[in-house]
Amino acid sequence: MKLDADAAAAIAEARASTATTRRPTVAALEARLYEPVPLLDHGFVRVIDYMGDDAAVVQAARVSYGKGTRAMRDDRGLIRYLLRHRHTTPFEMCEIKLHVKLPIFVARQWIRHRMANVNEYSARYSILDREFYLPRAEDLAVQSASNRQGRGDPLTPEAAAEVLDLLRRDAEQVYDHYEQLMETHQLARELARMDLTLNYYTQWYWKIDLHNLLHFLALRMDAHAQYEIRVYGEAIGAMVRDWVPTVWEAFEDYRLGAVTLSRAAIDVLARRLRGEPVALADSGLSKREWTELWESLGVAEPQG
Amino acid sequence: MKLDADAAAAIAEARASTATTRRPTVAALEARLYEPVPLLDHGFVRVIDYMGDDAAVVQAARVSYGKGTRAMRDDRGLIRYLLRHRHTTPFEMCEIKLHVKLPIFVARQWIRHRMANVNEYSARYSILDREFYLPRAEDLAVQSASNRQGRGDPLTPEAAAEVLDLLRRDAEQVYDHYEQLMETHQLARELARMDLTLNYYTQWYWKIDLHNLLHFLALRMDAHAQYEIRVYGEAIGAMVRDWVPTVWEAFEDYRLGAVTLSRAAIDVLARRLRGEPVALADSGLSKREWTELWESLGVAEPQG
Amino acid sequence: MKLDADAAAAIAEARASTATTRRPTVAALEARLYEPVPLLDHGFVRVIDYMGDDAAVVQAARVSYGKGTRAMRDDRGLIRYLLRHRHTTPFEMCEIKLHVKLPIFVARQWIRHRMANVNEYSARYSILDREFYLPRAEDLAVQSASNRQGRGDPLTPEAAAEVLDLLRRDAEQVYDHYEQLMETHQLARELARMDLTLNYYTQWYWKIDLHNLLHFLALRMDAHAQYEIRVYGEAIGAMVRDWVPTVWEAFEDYRLGAVTLSRAAIDVLARRLRGEPVALADSGLSKREWTELWESLGVAEPQG
Amino acid sequence: MKLDADAAAAIAEARASTATTRRPTVAALEARLYEPVPLLDHGFVRVIDYMGDDAAVVQAARVSYGKGTRAMRDDRGLIRYLLRHRHTTPFEMCEIKLHVKLPIFVARQWIRHRMANVNEYSARYSILDREFYLPRAEDLAVQSASNRQGRGDPLTPEAAAEVLDLLRRDAEQVYDHYEQLMETHQLARELARMDLTLNYYTQWYWKIDLHNLLHFLALRMDAHAQYEIRVYGEAIGAMVRDWVPTVWEAFEDYRLGAVTLSRAAIDVLARRLRGEPVALADSGLSKREWTELWESLGVAEPQG
Repeated sequence: MKLDADAAAAIAEARASTATTRRPTVAALEARLYEPVPLLDHGFVRVIDYMGDDAAVVQAARVSYGKGTRAMRDDRGLIRYLLRHRHTTPFEMCEIKLHVKLPIFVARQWIRHRMANVNEYSARYSILDREFYLPRAEDLAVQSASNRQGRGDPLTPEAAAEVLDLLRRDAEQVYDHYEQLMETHQLARELARMDLTLNYYTQWYWKIDLHNLLHFLALRMDAHAQYEIRVYGEAIGAMVRDWVPTVWEAFEDYRLGAVTLSRAAIDVLARRLRGEPVALADSGLSKREWTELWESLGVAEPQG
Repeated sequence: MKLDADAAAAIAEARASTATTRRPTVAALEARLYEPVPLLDHGFVRVIDYMGDDAAVVQAARVSYGKGTRAMRDDRGLIRYLLRHRHTTPFEMCEIKLHVKLPIFVARQWIRHRMANVNEYSARYSILDREFYLPRAEDLAVQSASNRQGRGDPLTPEAAAEVLDLLRRDAEQVYDHYEQLMETHQLARELARMDLTLNYYTQWYWKIDLHNLLHFLALRMDAHAQYEIRVYGEAIGAMVRDWVPTVWEAFEDYRLGAVTLSRAAIDVLARRLRGEPVALADSGLSKREWTELWESLGVAEPQG
Repeated sequence: MKLDADAAAAIAEARASTATTRRPTVAALEARLYEPVPLLDHGFVRVIDYMGDDAAVVQAARVSYGKGTRAMRDDRGLIRYLLRHRHTTPFEMCEIKLHVKLPIFVARQWIRHRMANVNEYSARYSILDREFYLPRAEDLAVQSASNRQGRGDPLTPEAAAEVLDLLRRDAEQVYDHYEQLMETHQLARELARMDLTLNYYTQWYWKIDLHNLLHFLALRMDAHAQYEIRVYGEAIGAMVRDWVPTVWEAFEDYRLGAVTLSRAAIDVLARRLRGEPVALADSGLSKREWTELWESLGVAEPQG
Repeated sequence: MKLDADAAAAIAEARASTATTRRPTVAALEARLYEPVPLLDHGFVRVIDYMGDDAAVVQAARVSYGKGTRAMRDDRGLIRYLLRHRHTTPFEMCEIKLHVKLPIFVARQWIRHRMANVNEYSARYSILDREFYLPRAEDLAVQSASNRQGRGDPLTPEAAAEVLDLLRRDAEQVYDHYEQLMETHQLARELARMDLTLNYYTQWYWKIDLHNLLHFLALRMDAHAQYEIRVYGEAIGAMVRDWVPTVWEAFEDYRLGAVTLSRAAIDVLARRLRGEPVALADSGLSKREWTELWESLGVAEPQG
């Protein structure tokens, strides 16, 4: 990621200007404010603003008058209780605003999360920069054999080099043409952009409440998410950990690290725990669910 | 409105505690933070937190790097342009959190605005206070003859006194019974509450973005809104004016003070402006629309 | 529940009128159309309209051309896969519209589900009927000792009789006054209504997609939901089972009957399954979580 | 637009299969069901399902028992009243589901409408077809001089030919490479797709209620919308006119053909209508607003 001089100066200026506030503040997030976290080759995420902290969740759940008047220990217990029992509205009382630069194909997945506010850089109004995403060689992988929407083994170095060469040449060429369309023919920007490839970068301001953000992170930090969006999920996760550490801890315990078991899977476990034999055939589970169950527990499949 | 000692102390403590922040701050709203604005007899609204300012609208619209780098004059022009042309997403980039105490029948209207976050005081979990709304005598009015959902002339002082006496006695009685149900019979709170009347106060934390808040205000500050919710709309409007004065000015010019004219009404006006005669009969307007048109313009109905 | 003659005639007429359609239809739901299912003493739910069926979920997930061209067996597998892995958008492609009559205190819980469309009977515009909810004696219960927002043991018959008598007299009295306010003093309806108690019935049209409806049902059919909303949840659940039986089966297996285990709970189970000793003290669980874990599995707490 | 044989057969089969229903049906929309309306070179919109009709708006507004029991004349008046006064919730009671095929750069604008349900064809899971959008020569235009996000004059035929040739060659080339990446190198589909240009077609199922659809249409049928999305807006508008003709008529009168005048503009008009002189200088309007005002009325600018 490389910022031009104007952008860097604007960020430095924003970081240098401070004021006094009566609002809740979080030192660890203040330290991060405005500073881009580089992602992929040209992307970034940076925090623009935030509202609330751990105590704000508690304050809303209690509809209380102060900033959070009970002992910290009570607050932690309440936050964990709320998250465990999916009382979601108190987590909606915190809000964060991010500035994100990301490839268009990643933006297309991201925007599916509707419960957020977005202002995207307009390619009708402005000209996109000559910045496109090229994966690192080690991130190129073959189509997964077992998962129709995932990656399998990495490419050989030779194959990776060929792929990257091809992607780079296409991206360079379409940007040359994009400029040519607008310069030689004065073609309207809203038309010229259609010649760009999906790995070109766009950027947006994105604002979301903590409940919906945790839902976004649960999906996008998951191992099944595409790598190129997962890195954004992880970077934002690290911000959330700094912002609301108690909520984050509960989120890791009760959501990220949790497993939901079906009615039939619970029955299987109960039988095993009571010392009864259980086999796939009489489990009520499909072969796939059976395998997933033992994997999710980190326990060997019962034999016979 | 009377706060108990604990609440008053919690508010005083919250107002006294300050911190340094890199985030945008608005001095006029900081001055208001946490302080309840009394409304009706026992209600209030108070600002708990906010995110963004006038410049945040501009910053999001431009997807820019700094806090707002152009001249103030440009910013004002852009804000007015955005609001006039209903570019709504930049206004979603500001957020405000309020603590509101309000009669239940008002809460039932308010909650219809779905694009907001709410945590309400739970009458399953806690006991409601002995606080109910009694209108001032001058706010009591007869059913409107012309508007099926509005008020007409005020009651006579004698009638008003009788009405208030009746409302007060019913409210006092049901609260006595509410307590009796829980004390004498240990009846569950979730059941006992059904005996309370709709003028009892509830309270909630309510968080909303500026775009949706302006929509709320356009509806709830309107002359057709019920008086008891309009006073909340007006109090919040005054907060918004302090918070984002440039947005507020544009909102007054282009929304609150604006009139939307139908295709047929525009045709009527065009004909008048060109000096042609227009009568209700050949206007394409209903009698009601015809009257509303001239009233909205503050111009006498054309005769003949 | 008693319908007046006009309502009954309108329902009979609606049920008698049929037409031919190319849209997917569900015979079991057609049989239910318009017919109220009585609930509580004066409430009901009736289906007004619906869009889609089991196959519509599959069709959307596949973005396919026909009404659902694969074998039924594949469809069931896909629906179960989608629900198990929380792919929620295909379930949003079915929609149902209900007409519901319900006590106001139930309506106040219900309306918290924001992802739905609502048109409520207006007490500003119209006069509410003299219909209020009185629990059956056996549904009256004391405040729960263990759960701050629930019910414990039922009242004694004598206590129940006293409670019901008090509730009935208050409700009758406030309705007499409600009428008196409007008749004697012509008080505006929007003011007079504030004297009614929270057990008065209101009604609304409510429209929601299947994904959001399942979320509503998971919360409102739960044992922790207040009885008076749970009966609505169960009645709607029976409609959904008729409407989309394959989705319903998956919902029962993977949501209603499922249990989500925290990271620490999974570790406890894994240790037990491997034959290692586990005690509360070294489990990483709170006492409450420990108890809930074994209860949710239907297995005795390990001793020592 | 060309459908493959399987798709055509599935559509024919869906159109041929009918059933009896008690639900409201609209003959003019039934006639359209499943049949694609071709748009641009490879796109289409087709109606998959619908819920409700003109009477359903009325029924919800009245929270009534029958399908709509009053005289048609009353219904029309109520619909027009609701739309004129922006009572939006009754219009949410109708729902439509569409299958849309559209270029990715159009999909990126479209998806900004969050109040809808979407299932998009997945390019992680499946391979996109070799179908890309090429404008007709007459739709190519230079960047607008007056509007930073619009088009100006059409290109000369020579320039248009060069532009189309370049767009076509780039699109063909990236598709060849897309296939090559997947075939020669087995590159994962989720990675290979990044080499496609933004004019490639995608498709989705899209479901939306009538209120939000009218909002979509008001924006996307507008002269300022990009041509490539406007054609979709107009095609859907024609469907809505067939579906709910009374709503559509009101929408044309009170929204599409309406003009919103600012406080200052109303004052200008009032002065003119009273015969007083008004000039730009003392109007309180910017030059741009002044011009827009007279243009929107179709009246010559007052001189001096």
